[in-house]
Amino acid sequence: MKLLDLEPARDVRIVEVGPRDGLQNEKQLIPTATKLALIRRLAAAGLQDIEATSFVSPKWVPQMADHAEVMAGLPSQDEFPGVNYPVLTPNLKGFEAAMAAGAKEVAVFAAASEAFSQKNINCSIAESITRFEPILAAAQAAGMRVRGYISCVVGCPYEGAITPQVVADVAWRLRDLGCYEVSLGDTIGVGNPASVARMLEAVGARVPMAQLAGHYHDTYGMGAANVHASYQMGVRVFDSSVAGLGGCPYAKGATGNVATEDVVWLLHGLGVRTGVDLEALVDCGAWISAELGRLSGSRVARALLARRG
Amino acid sequence: MKLLDLEPARDVRIVEVGPRDGLQNEKQLIPTATKLALIRRLAAAGLQDIEATSFVSPKWVPQMADHAEVMAGLPSQDEFPGVNYPVLTPNLKGFEAAMAAGAKEVAVFAAASEAFSQKNINCSIAESITRFEPILAAAQAAGMRVRGYISCVVGCPYEGAITPQVVADVAWRLRDLGCYEVSLGDTIGVGNPASVARMLEAVGARVPMAQLAGHYHDTYGMGAANVHASYQMGVRVFDSSVAGLGGCPYAKGATGNVATEDVVWLLHGLGVRTGVDLEALVDCGAWISAELGRLSGSRVARALLARRG
Repeated sequence: MKLLDLEPARDVRIVEVGPRDGLQNEKQLIPTATKLALIRRLAAAGLQDIEATSFVSPKWVPQMADHAEVMAGLPSQDEFPGVNYPVLTPNLKGFEAAMAAGAKEVAVFAAASEAFSQKNINCSIAESITRFEPILAAAQAAGMRVRGYISCVVGCPYEGAITPQVVADVAWRLRDLGCYEVSLGDTIGVGNPASVARMLEAVGARVPMAQLAGHYHDTYGMGAANVHASYQMGVRVFDSSVAGLGGCPYAKGATGNVATEDVVWLLHGLGVRTGVDLEALVDCGAWISAELGRLSGSRVARALLARRG
Repeated sequence: MKLLDLEPARDVRIVEVGPRDGLQNEKQLIPTATKLALIRRLAAAGLQDIEATSFVSPKWVPQMADHAEVMAGLPSQDEFPGVNYPVLTPNLKGFEAAMAAGAKEVAVFAAASEAFSQKNINCSIAESITRFEPILAAAQAAGMRVRGYISCVVGCPYEGAITPQVVADVAWRLRDLGCYEVSLGDTIGVGNPASVARMLEAVGARVPMAQLAGHYHDTYGMGAANVHASYQMGVRVFDSSVAGLGGCPYAKGATGNVATEDVVWLLHGLGVRTGVDLEALVDCGAWISAELGRLSGSRVARALLARRG
């Protein structure tokens, strides 16, 4: 019996995207039970925001076809009080399915690159924003929170470098629509502390830092450096993926999302509280890496596991 | 025929330690020809400081037993003008052998941890400094430069956290002895931008920043973040190892030295000139990784190679 449900104090919120962003490009279909076990272990390690699945057409993302089953199997609020399980919804149809499945928070995604927007979601940036309007309206009516994602905030696989002002403009529009937070994604991991800082400076002039999240990829090993640079500039929310789940579809064999273990290690080293139990998180990452038959993408996890012997 | 030997302008000097620090713990004996080919490729990629070998007893480090052959086979100054090939010398005997083999620059190594000093070089910190005195005197007489290394500047596998003031004291003593530069090694890679900054602040109060080098390990994925934090504090010399050569003997399976490719990518991203041709360096790293039969420890190399297809 629990005597008290004391939530650990946090200075930074970590949004764990492993179960969705991390798994969505996996070739092998992952059993729903494995996804739910992953989510449960993440919650047990202290993660309070766990992106659970996406309500995208199974034609586009077959790995997320079991979204309703995942939602039905989520831990109860009694088991892990206060944990949020946001889901991705590209359009009103997806939003309605998510709501029917019991989602309490959804996320919409735009790009800061016209070419990427066309290739990824088949419409211009402006059209994507228009498409989100009914979602935001419906969410507001239902009392649900909506998070906005922007991809390619530093570079794009088709356009190259992205102008910070474009990112700022998309971020402003998402917030203006009603998104409570805008997650800034360096989708192909080309950002470094200087280019990330220039981007954040531009965005921060339009949207308060408190409503921004950093979503970095470790493709070029800059994940931790970019989190640190962003933290120095006032960002207090970071997206990451346990074990660095999620490769980079634009550079085969390269790493994807910055690993949650690495972000937690860095932040704890800076004296910043995350509420996450690093050792439990390392166990969780080791378990899912074994399930997927691969080496963890987290250097911290590999070093800590090696140290355990 | 070369028309001009224009050395590319550099804002930061990179000391490549792959051929020595990177290879010294390899179990398989690497042919001298392979070491020399590595050194030649590194020089061709624009590295100007390449640690070539160490004059330690072959009983302790069998991998470096061919030090005299390596020195004899180094590229000529005509081939790569201005390139330095420092070597490690633990004592006067090693120094004399290095000088006889034609070394123009040597390095001595101390620790910031008494326990590590005892286990690694069988003497106290103070005794190790005393042992360096005749080396520094002989080097001065011969007009040779001496670099000082300090290991465990943030943490020690035996003692845990290291007090910055101890590092500052050892650094001051090495400089006082006559070392032109002191390389600060986070031997077990436990440093983060905060602990590295605290260490640099203490050391910088005793030794000018211009005479310090950052020597970081990527064991916990903090290599790039620590280089960035140090650069922000004024450090302009960094040690690194192509392909991240050199595992961590204190955490089996973990990564060692921060990869030169990652440091160069970071610095170029910050607009800082290194004089290094990144693509040529990536080729060099791919080649030595294949020679050793392993995956490169450099995320930048893996991503760039994946991008090439």
